[in-house]
Amino acid sequence: MSKKIVIVGGVAAGPKAACHLKRLQPGWDITIVDMDSLISYGGCGIPYYVCGDVSDESELRSTSFHMVRDVDFFENAKGVHVLTRTKALAIDRQNKKVKVENLDSGEQQELEYDKLMLSTGARPFVLPINGADLDGVFTIANLHKAIEIKKRISTGQVGKAVVIGGGAIGVEMAEALTDLWGIETALIEFMPQLLPRIVDWQFAAMLKTHLQEKDVAVYTSEGATEIVGNEEGKVVAVKTPERTLEADLVIMAAGVRPRSELAAEAGLSVAPWGGIVVNDRLQTTDPDIYAGGDCIATTNLVTGKETYAPLGSLANREGRIVGDNMAGTVTTMKGVVGSFIMKAFDRCIGATGITYEAAVAEGFDADYALTAPSDRAHFYPGEAIAVFQLVFDKRTRRVLGMQGFGLMNDSISARIDAAAVMISKDATIEDFMLAEMAYAPPFSAAIDSINAAAFVADNICAGRLRKLDMDRFLAWMDDFSTEPDWMALDIRHPLEAGPFVEKFGKENWAAVPYAEVRKRYEEIPEDRTMIILCDAGTRSYEVQVFLDHVGRKNTLVLSGGVNVIRRIGVDWYPE
Amino acid sequence: MSKKIVIVGGVAAGPKAACHLKRLQPGWDITIVDMDSLISYGGCGIPYYVCGDVSDESELRSTSFHMVRDVDFFENAKGVHVLTRTKALAIDRQNKKVKVENLDSGEQQELEYDKLMLSTGARPFVLPINGADLDGVFTIANLHKAIEIKKRISTGQVGKAVVIGGGAIGVEMAEALTDLWGIETALIEFMPQLLPRIVDWQFAAMLKTHLQEKDVAVYTSEGATEIVGNEEGKVVAVKTPERTLEADLVIMAAGVRPRSELAAEAGLSVAPWGGIVVNDRLQTTDPDIYAGGDCIATTNLVTGKETYAPLGSLANREGRIVGDNMAGTVTTMKGVVGSFIMKAFDRCIGATGITYEAAVAEGFDADYALTAPSDRAHFYPGEAIAVFQLVFDKRTRRVLGMQGFGLMNDSISARIDAAAVMISKDATIEDFMLAEMAYAPPFSAAIDSINAAAFVADNICAGRLRKLDMDRFLAWMDDFSTEPDWMALDIRHPLEAGPFVEKFGKENWAAVPYAEVRKRYEEIPEDRTMIILCDAGTRSYEVQVFLDHVGRKNTLVLSGGVNVIRRIGVDWYPE
Repeated sequence: MSKKIVIVGGVAAGPKAACHLKRLQPGWDITIVDMDSLISYGGCGIPYYVCGDVSDESELRSTSFHMVRDVDFFENAKGVHVLTRTKALAIDRQNKKVKVENLDSGEQQELEYDKLMLSTGARPFVLPINGADLDGVFTIANLHKAIEIKKRISTGQVGKAVVIGGGAIGVEMAEALTDLWGIETALIEFMPQLLPRIVDWQFAAMLKTHLQEKDVAVYTSEGATEIVGNEEGKVVAVKTPERTLEADLVIMAAGVRPRSELAAEAGLSVAPWGGIVVNDRLQTTDPDIYAGGDCIATTNLVTGKETYAPLGSLANREGRIVGDNMAGTVTTMKGVVGSFIMKAFDRCIGATGITYEAAVAEGFDADYALTAPSDRAHFYPGEAIAVFQLVFDKRTRRVLGMQGFGLMNDSISARIDAAAVMISKDATIEDFMLAEMAYAPPFSAAIDSINAAAFVADNICAGRLRKLDMDRFLAWMDDFSTEPDWMALDIRHPLEAGPFVEKFGKENWAAVPYAEVRKRYEEIPEDRTMIILCDAGTRSYEVQVFLDHVGRKNTLVLSGGVNVIRRIGVDWYPE
Repeated sequence: MSKKIVIVGGVAAGPKAACHLKRLQPGWDITIVDMDSLISYGGCGIPYYVCGDVSDESELRSTSFHMVRDVDFFENAKGVHVLTRTKALAIDRQNKKVKVENLDSGEQQELEYDKLMLSTGARPFVLPINGADLDGVFTIANLHKAIEIKKRISTGQVGKAVVIGGGAIGVEMAEALTDLWGIETALIEFMPQLLPRIVDWQFAAMLKTHLQEKDVAVYTSEGATEIVGNEEGKVVAVKTPERTLEADLVIMAAGVRPRSELAAEAGLSVAPWGGIVVNDRLQTTDPDIYAGGDCIATTNLVTGKETYAPLGSLANREGRIVGDNMAGTVTTMKGVVGSFIMKAFDRCIGATGITYEAAVAEGFDADYALTAPSDRAHFYPGEAIAVFQLVFDKRTRRVLGMQGFGLMNDSISARIDAAAVMISKDATIEDFMLAEMAYAPPFSAAIDSINAAAFVADNICAGRLRKLDMDRFLAWMDDFSTEPDWMALDIRHPLEAGPFVEKFGKENWAAVPYAEVRKRYEEIPEDRTMIILCDAGTRSYEVQVFLDHVGRKNTLVLSGGVNVIRRIGVDWYPE
C-alpha cells in the first residue's frame, strides 16, 4: 500500500533518505519541503567555491554526472516532489499532518504523512555582540551567503577580512580568502587553540604556524567583543580585547546549533543543547517521525555519551538509514567516532575519536604516543614527515583517538580512516600494532605510521618508555630555571646538535650522537635529569633503554622530537 | 640472566626482531648471521633504485636519519652482533647450537643459542627452462643483482628487455625499465591475467591497458619456453609459444619460494610447499626456535587456510612479535588478510582479502559490487574516477575482499587500508556501510567509496539490484548473436549515447536519458532483455528499480558501467 512521506529539510540527509526510500518503495509518495530555493548542495564545498576552485555554485548542487539537483531533477529523475521556499510551521502528530507555508505567496497548506523525517539541519551560531548584523558580516549559513561573499570578493570590494572562529569552517574560509584572492585575513579564536576539542594543542599549534606562514594572521585566546560599522551600516572592523582588526568582510564561523524548534514544539524529545533525540534506528520519541543530519543528537562511541556531530558524510549515511527503516528494513547505527579531515593550504590535518585532553577530562587512564614518521618509504622521492598522535587508555589498552598532520595529500586520511574503523570497534593497541596497512614504498613505510604509533603506545604501557610532554619541554626552554635539574641530551648528528650546544651552553645541552652512546655514555652527567631528544623520538627511546640498562635511569624522552618542535614553531630555534 | 640469541637471516624480520629484543632485554647477547655482505635493506625499494628514483643502493640500507645499516651500525648503535657472508649450515637442536661457515674464509664455528630465530626469507623461483642461467638473465634475489642490473642499464648495455612474470615485482620492474630508461620492454605472464590471485580479471585488465598505454608490451597467457643466448653466452631473446622477443636483459620475476631447507633438515615442521609452520606466537615446532618473514607459512584470515604472504611490512611486524615472545611477553598474530598496493606508472592498484574468483573457488556464496565513484568530491579540482570491487558472501553478508584502481595517489590506499582492518575483524556489509571515513571535499566524496560499494552490495543481497557481469557483456559486444534477446539501454546524456546508437544500431542500442525514463519508459522494448548502462552503474540501478515498479522486470544493470569499460579498453568503443 502506498504511503505518504514528508521530509522537512532538503540539503543532505533529507534528499538522501528520499531518494533511497523511493528506490526501496517506488510506489510511495515522497515530498521534501525546504525553506530555501536552492537544495541538495554540498555545503562542505562552500570554501572551495568561495576561493574559486569551484567556479560556479551550481557545481555544488550537481550530480557527479553534471545534472543540477533542482526541483525538476527530483521530480523527473527521482520521482520525489520538492516544495522549495516552503517553511514547515508545525507538526500535528495526532492527525499526522505538517502545516507548511510558502514563503513567497504566504499560502499555507497541510501535508499528510504516514511517516515524517526531520532533517532541518543546523544554523550558524551568531555571537551576541554589537555589529553582528552589519552589512558585510556573514555566516556560512547557506549557498546564498556564499554567493554574496564571492560576489563581493570578485568585484574587488574586499581588501581585508576577519574570520571569527577557528574551527574547520573558519580555517577553510581563512584559506579561501587568502590563498587565491590575496585578501589580508585575520582569524580569531576565543579558545586558546584552533580546532578546539577536535585536536590536541600540538596539532593546533602546527596548524597555526602553517597558517601564519601563509600570511593568515591568527589570534587565539581572543574573542570578538564588537563588530564596528561605518555610518552606512557597513562593517569596518572587528574588536577584540587586544586589538582592532580592520575588515571589509567578516565571516562569523563560531559553530552551528541544531535547528530543532519544530521538533521541540511538536513535543518530541530534544536535548537541552538542541539536538533531537533519536534511537539507533533514527526514530524520534514519536516512532513515525525520524530525524537525521545536523539536527540530531548522537552518541560518541568512545565515551558512550551524547554528542553532536554535524558532518556532511554522516548526514548522508543517516539519510540512508532513515530510508531503510521507513521502508521496513531495520538498519541501525550506534553512534559516531567523529572522523575529521581538513585541507589547510599545503597541509592536511585529521582526527578521529577523542583528544588526549578530552580523554583526561572523561576520566580515562589516558596517555598518548606522539610520533613523527615518514609518510612513505624514507628513500622514496617526495617523502615527508607526518606527525601522529595515538590516544589510549593505559589500563584497558583501548585506543581512544588518533590525530595526524602532514603534507596535503591523502596519506593522513588513509591513517585516520583506518584508525576510525578500528576505534569504532573498540580496538586496542594490539589491533593497531597488527593493522595490516598495504605497503609499497610509494605509499608507506614498511612499518606503517599506525603500527609505529601503536608500538610507541605499547612501550609506554609497558613502562619501557618514559616520556616528557612537549608543553613541559617548551616551558623549560623558555626558562631553564623552572627545572634547574634538567639537561638536554641531543643524540642527533653533530651538525644538527652543534648549534644547540652553542646557543644553549654545555651546561644545558649535552650532545652524544646516537650511534656512539653505547661507547660514550660515561660522558653523560649523572646528576641531572637528561631530556633525550632526536628528530622523532624513536632513537631517543632506544638510548633511554640502553641508559636504563647501564644504571642511568634519570632520563626522559622528548615525545615527537625536533620534528614536532619545528612544526609548532619556536622563537629559540637556532638558525 | 643473560641469554644467547641467534638469528639466521638479516634482511627484514631478523633485524627487526633483534633490535626490538635488544630493547626489551638489553643484557642479552644477540647475533644475526647472513650469507650476504649487504643486510637490512628495503627489498621492496629495488624497482625504485633500478629506475633511478633512488639514486644509490645504500639509501635502501639506510635509516630514516641517513645512517647506513651495516655491521658497525648494528654493533655500535643497536648492540647487536652481525656475521655477514656467513651461512648457517645446520641446527643442532639437542645441544642448541647452529653450525655456521664463513663463505670467504671457509672457517666454520658453532654458535650456541638459548633461542633461535629463522628469518631465512625467500628465493626467487627460477623457471626450469633452457637459458635461465645465461648472462643477462636476472632474478630480483638481492641488492647485488639490483646493482648489476642498474649498472648494465646505466652504461647503455640494454636496449630491449623482457620481464617474465606479471606479479607485483614484474610489473614494477617493467615500469622501472620503461619509464626512466626508455628501454623497449615486454612483460609476459603465463596466467591469463596480470597479478593473478591478487586481483580479479577486470582490475588486471585495467592495469594491462595502462601498461600498454605506457609502451610496455604485455603478453598474458604466454609463458617463457626458452631463453636464447648468443655464442658468448649472453641473452639475446625470450621465446614463448607465440613469439620470440629480443632482449639484452631478462628479469625473471616468477614468484618466490620460502627458504626453509635449514628448518626442514633440523626436523622442524615445514609445509609441503616450503613454508615453515609456526604457531600464533611464531614458534616453530621447536618452542625455542621462532620463525618470521618470507620463510613462514601463515593463515589467511578470510579462508582460515594456510597461506604464503611474503610481504616486507608483514616481515617487520612479525619480527617485533618474535622479539616480544623471545623476551617473555606473549604477543600473537592470528594470520593475514594480505593487503597489497602498487604503483604502476600513473595508476595505483590495491587489494585486500580474497578475490571474487578465489571466493567462488573457496565455496563462499560469493558475489561482488563493482563501482566507479569519484576519488574525492566530484566538484573538487583534480577529482578522478576510481574503480572498486567489494567481494562478499551473500549468505553471511561478510566482506571477503576489496580491490581498487585509480590515479597514482594515496586515495586507493586509504580505502584498502580501512577495508583491510575491517576484513581482518570479520566485518560485514553493514560495517562497511557505516564505516566512518573522514570527509572533506579535497579527500573524498560525501558518500565515501567504501560506503558506496557497501550500499551496492546491500542492494545486491536484498535482490534489488540484478547485475550483469562485465565479461558476459563484453562477450555479447563481440558477438550480438550470442544473446540475441539482449539490447542495451543507454541512459547517459544523448551526446554520450548517440555514437553508440549510431555504431551499433537502434535494434541493439536504445537510448533514453536517465532523467526522462519516468516519462518515456513506454518507448523501451518489452520483448528484449534490456542491459541498462551508464557511467558507473548507479543511475542504471535507479532505472532498474523504476522499471521493475512499472512491470518491466526484464533488465540487468551493467556493473561498473562505461567507466570500467573504458579503463579495460575495448576495440569497439566509438571515437
